[in-house]
Amino acid sequence: MPRTAKEIADFVQARLVGDGAVQLTGISSISSASHGDLVFVEDEKNLTKAIASSASAIIVPESTRADPSSKPLLLHAQPRLAFARAAQLLCALPDRKPGIHPSSIVHPSAQLAADVTIGQRVVIGESVKVGDRTWIGAGSVIGGNAVIGQSCEIYPNVTIYPNVRIGNRVIVHSGAVLGSDGFGYVRDEKTGRNEKFPQIGRLEIEDDVEIGANSTIDRGALDVTRIGRGTKIDNLVHVGHNVQIGEDVVIAAQTGLSGSAVIENNVVMGGQVGIADHVKIEAGAILGAQSGIPSKKIIRGKGVVFWGTPARPIREYLKELGALARLAKKE
Amino acid sequence: MPRTAKEIADFVQARLVGDGAVQLTGISSISSASHGDLVFVEDEKNLTKAIASSASAIIVPESTRADPSSKPLLLHAQPRLAFARAAQLLCALPDRKPGIHPSSIVHPSAQLAADVTIGQRVVIGESVKVGDRTWIGAGSVIGGNAVIGQSCEIYPNVTIYPNVRIGNRVIVHSGAVLGSDGFGYVRDEKTGRNEKFPQIGRLEIEDDVEIGANSTIDRGALDVTRIGRGTKIDNLVHVGHNVQIGEDVVIAAQTGLSGSAVIENNVVMGGQVGIADHVKIEAGAILGAQSGIPSKKIIRGKGVVFWGTPARPIREYLKELGALARLAKKE
Amino acid sequence: MPRTAKEIADFVQARLVGDGAVQLTGISSISSASHGDLVFVEDEKNLTKAIASSASAIIVPESTRADPSSKPLLLHAQPRLAFARAAQLLCALPDRKPGIHPSSIVHPSAQLAADVTIGQRVVIGESVKVGDRTWIGAGSVIGGNAVIGQSCEIYPNVTIYPNVRIGNRVIVHSGAVLGSDGFGYVRDEKTGRNEKFPQIGRLEIEDDVEIGANSTIDRGALDVTRIGRGTKIDNLVHVGHNVQIGEDVVIAAQTGLSGSAVIENNVVMGGQVGIADHVKIEAGAILGAQSGIPSKKIIRGKGVVFWGTPARPIREYLKELGALARLAKKE
Repeated sequence: MPRTAKEIADFVQARLVGDGAVQLTGISSISSASHGDLVFVEDEKNLTKAIASSASAIIVPESTRADPSSKPLLLHAQPRLAFARAAQLLCALPDRKPGIHPSSIVHPSAQLAADVTIGQRVVIGESVKVGDRTWIGAGSVIGGNAVIGQSCEIYPNVTIYPNVRIGNRVIVHSGAVLGSDGFGYVRDEKTGRNEKFPQIGRLEIEDDVEIGANSTIDRGALDVTRIGRGTKIDNLVHVGHNVQIGEDVVIAAQTGLSGSAVIENNVVMGGQVGIADHVKIEAGAILGAQSGIPSKKIIRGKGVVFWGTPARPIREYLKELGALARLAKKE
Repeated sequence: MPRTAKEIADFVQARLVGDGAVQLTGISSISSASHGDLVFVEDEKNLTKAIASSASAIIVPESTRADPSSKPLLLHAQPRLAFARAAQLLCALPDRKPGIHPSSIVHPSAQLAADVTIGQRVVIGESVKVGDRTWIGAGSVIGGNAVIGQSCEIYPNVTIYPNVRIGNRVIVHSGAVLGSDGFGYVRDEKTGRNEKFPQIGRLEIEDDVEIGANSTIDRGALDVTRIGRGTKIDNLVHVGHNVQIGEDVVIAAQTGLSGSAVIENNVVMGGQVGIADHVKIEAGAILGAQSGIPSKKIIRGKGVVFWGTPARPIREYLKELGALARLAKKE
Repeated sequence: MPRTAKEIADFVQARLVGDGAVQLTGISSISSASHGDLVFVEDEKNLTKAIASSASAIIVPESTRADPSSKPLLLHAQPRLAFARAAQLLCALPDRKPGIHPSSIVHPSAQLAADVTIGQRVVIGESVKVGDRTWIGAGSVIGGNAVIGQSCEIYPNVTIYPNVRIGNRVIVHSGAVLGSDGFGYVRDEKTGRNEKFPQIGRLEIEDDVEIGANSTIDRGALDVTRIGRGTKIDNLVHVGHNVQIGEDVVIAAQTGLSGSAVIENNVVMGGQVGIADHVKIEAGAILGAQSGIPSKKIIRGKGVVFWGTPARPIREYLKELGALARLAKKE
């Protein structure tokens, strides 16, 4: 579906300089651009490369001194964002025809909206509800009473335990497990053995959340585990029972959140971060990769980067690293 | 299935104070309790909240000065344990009718006990044995010659490689992979290439083990990987080939155990702990989250907490952290 | 399939001392050897044990003073390597008869070589190509346009996203997810919300790669993620979008590589290593377990071991640890 540079500029609300009739057929990086591709640059130093490439149009920062002679330029305050939005028009959508594949096994009591796409060998349990335009990929298993909203994408081989509630436009990648039992036991002091503490709570995932491949999110023990609107979770992340994650939180791969942790809005976590139980990370804090927060700590500081185990402000951490290196050299 | 407070008190061997005829219909946390719920408190300060809640009965510590005027109290030396046991009577069991779903594919040589529950699309290989009352959830694949004991719960989309042996009352959560090849190669010094070392050993999982979602446990290279009775393993944990784990060990999420590690009884590991190859953790040691044990080390000390990488007694580790912070401040 | 000691010696190019007619029927460790087993020793101190065992033949270092009186000895410069190769003759291959299981769902446009083995309930998408002798285990899902080479082993419940390209003799263990979306968002500075950056690139996996259970490898955002020939990846490893991994790289369990990292040939990584975005690890470097490499760093040093976060040469790191311990003691 080719689009003109003018159409794209209008769609992303960019100011167009140059030939608006140029046809665009796709997006690409500068280094692999070919005829018909739209590319973007965030700083001037890449602009020369972009102009020299085979790309047919370029999204550039608003401040760019536009030269109308060569390729059409689309000036925008946030070029990367404009590029991401342009991709919605220029990239082919996956070909998912609505319908229920005959090899899937849908419980008669399940309520599927008219235009869902249910892939091969999907299993859908009793009383499950699935909203409009949602896709469930091959081999996924949806437990009884689960509710999945509209326009969700559940990739193949996902497992959703019973009673999980998922909002709209949620993306769940393959192998993810949602709503599994939390890790809770009671040690009998007489026998030394661990007995299972009941794990009968719920998991609620709000709108616009994305969950990476093979991540695991436990439901609450007695109450609820909650993932707030717009939160993005990478691959192989663990979220324990009763964790409360706010809105627009970003959690990189292999990070683990222990039971009852509270993560407020707009927190950013690097990869392999470890959050112990009952920790609170206040709004807007940034946790560097591999940092560790001990049990019950509160991390406070919008925009402040924390690093190390136990995590401290990165400034302090780097100062300590420097002092230690000098000490070792002196010896 | 409502129960009276008296029935629950008898079942968990608690001393009842108050009206034993009160009907109980479920369990809950204090904060979300409603009429009919049983709750528990472990310290006096929560007792007022519990009494003020809508809960119909409360499990309390033995030492509580019981006031028979309000709600029935169940006095017990271990309230949390009594609560976990009461849940067995008060929580509805999952509705799993014995039977083999017609969409499952069971090899004719497999021996399934009369009252197993085999879910949709399960694949069961040659000569597999499955014991009484065991449930295998939708989409799970059980390799040839595997043996699964009685009263096990194998959640959906689990993969069990051939020849794995699993005891009784074992719980395996979705996405777990049991019996995969260990990570063993031999580098040919002439070519620099890595060739596969044979991974033909076994995996044995004893009674009452629980394994979290998406955890992976490799079988032995030539011999056996063993997970001892009562051991509890959280999500996304890795257990390498030839690892020997004792009884009643607790391993939190994302911890990794390299090949041939030996973990003795009653060891407790926090999340994201890293155990290198041929390490030995002696009985009862406690490894703090994210701690790391280098190759071939022995960790000794029942009840001692170790922390850091390389792990040392937490007292030492905290002292070092303090000394470093002071050094950095002085500079 | 019994073999004589002579046949094995010829196959692995070892020098035979002793009775070449001895029949071998399997391989084992020394401690569990029984009659008919081949074992190996790498140092003299295990030789006595091996001779005293029930094993029927022993692979030993070339320098061994061979005593022809007892068991047949196979002298080789790399005993472990010779043993691994001997296993190819002495271990039974898995019984995988070529054919397409009738419960699998293969798109009519897919091109499967004549002697592939497609297991139960496999789903193969549009235009997929699968090469000679490749096995795809039960429950695996292969997305449209994926290409899988010859003699590959795809274990049960693997998910391969569309367009992934896999070379020859590649092994993928259960639960692995190949080609998932990278973790890329653009924050709209006006709304504070994260929008999805397009993840439309490719994943290419070259010959002789092995990928562990439940590992996840994202495809490129706009370009390609590449795993070079002979690279071995353990369980629960994360590889982000646009990562470039060279040849013969070894990556232990739970290691994570962030977007656009470059790992050159023959790098070795311990478990739980964290590689931030745009890092470069030059050829032959060795990263100790749990070490962390901050964003955009370059690690250089063939054969040098790095440790800690941020990773530094192990010598330095150990010196710093020692200095810190002494400082804490002095206080």
